[in-house]
Amino acid sequence: MNYFSSDFKLGILGGGQLGKMLLFDTRKFDIQTYVLDPSEEAPSKIACNHFVQGDLMDFDTVYSFGKKVDVLTFEIELVNLDALVKLEEEGVPVYPSPKTLKLIQNKGIQKDFFSQHNIPTAAYNRFDTTTSLKTAVENNKLSLPFVWKCTEFGYDGNGVKVVRKATDLDALPNVECIAEAMIPFKNELAVIVCRNPSGEIKTYPVVEMEFHPEANQVEYVICPARIDDAVAKKARAIALNVSQQFHHVGLLAVEMFQTEDDEILVNEVAPRPHNSGHYSIEASYTSQFENHLRAILDLPLGNTDSKVAGIMVNLVGSEGHSGPVVYENIEKILGWNGVTPHIYGKKQTRPFRKMGHVTIVNEDVNEARKIAEQVKNTIKVIS
Amino acid sequence: MNYFSSDFKLGILGGGQLGKMLLFDTRKFDIQTYVLDPSEEAPSKIACNHFVQGDLMDFDTVYSFGKKVDVLTFEIELVNLDALVKLEEEGVPVYPSPKTLKLIQNKGIQKDFFSQHNIPTAAYNRFDTTTSLKTAVENNKLSLPFVWKCTEFGYDGNGVKVVRKATDLDALPNVECIAEAMIPFKNELAVIVCRNPSGEIKTYPVVEMEFHPEANQVEYVICPARIDDAVAKKARAIALNVSQQFHHVGLLAVEMFQTEDDEILVNEVAPRPHNSGHYSIEASYTSQFENHLRAILDLPLGNTDSKVAGIMVNLVGSEGHSGPVVYENIEKILGWNGVTPHIYGKKQTRPFRKMGHVTIVNEDVNEARKIAEQVKNTIKVIS
Repeated sequence: MNYFSSDFKLGILGGGQLGKMLLFDTRKFDIQTYVLDPSEEAPSKIACNHFVQGDLMDFDTVYSFGKKVDVLTFEIELVNLDALVKLEEEGVPVYPSPKTLKLIQNKGIQKDFFSQHNIPTAAYNRFDTTTSLKTAVENNKLSLPFVWKCTEFGYDGNGVKVVRKATDLDALPNVECIAEAMIPFKNELAVIVCRNPSGEIKTYPVVEMEFHPEANQVEYVICPARIDDAVAKKARAIALNVSQQFHHVGLLAVEMFQTEDDEILVNEVAPRPHNSGHYSIEASYTSQFENHLRAILDLPLGNTDSKVAGIMVNLVGSEGHSGPVVYENIEKILGWNGVTPHIYGKKQTRPFRKMGHVTIVNEDVNEARKIAEQVKNTIKVIS
Repeated sequence: MNYFSSDFKLGILGGGQLGKMLLFDTRKFDIQTYVLDPSEEAPSKIACNHFVQGDLMDFDTVYSFGKKVDVLTFEIELVNLDALVKLEEEGVPVYPSPKTLKLIQNKGIQKDFFSQHNIPTAAYNRFDTTTSLKTAVENNKLSLPFVWKCTEFGYDGNGVKVVRKATDLDALPNVECIAEAMIPFKNELAVIVCRNPSGEIKTYPVVEMEFHPEANQVEYVICPARIDDAVAKKARAIALNVSQQFHHVGLLAVEMFQTEDDEILVNEVAPRPHNSGHYSIEASYTSQFENHLRAILDLPLGNTDSKVAGIMVNLVGSEGHSGPVVYENIEKILGWNGVTPHIYGKKQTRPFRKMGHVTIVNEDVNEARKIAEQVKNTIKVIS
């Protein structure tokens, strides 16, 4: 198949920042792109050849979009799965496959998959509704505390809640959910795995998510993770196994806990380019986006090693600011060594909205960490 | 000035591959872009916010385009200079300035500028026409051999000819020209300088243009150049001086000869992102394109150091092939370490047309050089 400067058409479901960054690399390869997104102001709109505005959860919209393209991928999991199944049945290559997506989209099914395939994960119980979970607690069938997770449509901490007493459940929506054992962990880690239809498979180095000591929020994604080599090796082996068990094609981000006794437990997976891999644009020989593209086109995968250490800081809207966005002090941070902002192109800021990220690269990870902290304390996303 | 996600408008004259690669970085910063180019199939068309089709040499077209934007730059020197002068007079920031462009656009004036500012360069004589040059040769006022260069509109070797006997001149166009002393040189080098309106200035490392031993054509651009540190230091100092003398804003590519006795002579300059800086996308902390953008917006300049060694191979159309392009064996080279193709997006190939380039990065420049040679011998641009 000749992809480059040809009539070949790649379709992408979702036109957010992940799609926008993926589209950079389609430009480099001169691949024709089609994007479907509900928003007229989608960040990807500017970077694709053809933009279609439409609902990603609507069967007909996704199906007729998919029929126009030669290969279909997605940058968001919340898409109409039935349409993907039908497209695949009718011969449109869909990567990752809807079979894989089906196992991932629902966190209960995802956890069952881990259990059935001996993938280490925290103990859990599935419940049809939060009400039935509450009944189990009241009947002492489940001990407190635990982590409540809704099985569908949660993202970015939304849909996850630590439950310390039964009444904590009252404020939660009455939806399908799981109760997961709380894991005392040293570190939250992630490994991005890349696999093509021919079965070539590579992992990126282990990254570390450093949390704010008070607010329960990821502050820095650090590559390489500051952990023992043996732990890193184990984490990469487990991530590789997860991708293979799913017969996954494209990128799979595997989020993990490093427990107090250095066990690795898989927390959850995302079947697409991931926030924890943004550092790769500046730090890696091949960015996660280029490797996703290589994978879904069944091209050889690029080198996942790092040229230098990389740290990512998310740029989220400050509290108390809604309206046209201003990046305060961005000129200042541009003057520091190895600092590159990525602005996603959203015109309006809102509290905690992901507006961009900043990558800090340096030969020395500790030096990068210092600069990252200065960046975090300097730039403000306001209106 | 707030550039990011605002109503600020950047105009770019020329929509070729240089503009296309510059536009990648405007995306990252979410800057609104306007591009003017005569071709409906310009590579930049896909990557900008607003595309205007029109003649870059036409006063009215350039002037009215310039009036629409807040800052104007160009990716090709062959633009209507009078329009730029008028726009600058009327308060539109034009970077590089038309005053600088005027000194560069005509190679005779450029050489005079070097002489007047003690910038080392090969000896030369200016002539109104090739005929008057021929008369000088016939009257023994000029000794053979020498290098004939037309002063305007030449590029990529076009407009340059080694003259060994008087009759060699007969085949040349009768235009304004210079006759330049032939310099026996060890190496052709280049240094890209970056300068912002506030006067902050940085040079990239010295690169080496390695020529094919038989065909007189650059095969590889190698960073860092495999030369002595003292020579590299001298070359960077001279390039810095050239940019300062021009009061240049933006990128200035300074091409130089390293003579047999390690003197540095400036050959010519280009006031824009340059082929000799393409390696910087993968190898440098800050690519030449990002630094051009930072410079013309008077933002702090990024680090020009390299993360790893980089080598660039041009992808030009093979002889005997005209028509819809095919990149033969591109899948193969994608499988090698640190190899990234950049396809410019031209649908039709012609012999020697620049269709793209390939960057090879590696910690070890000699290893990169080996892989570059394999790339060169493997990929073919055919129809």
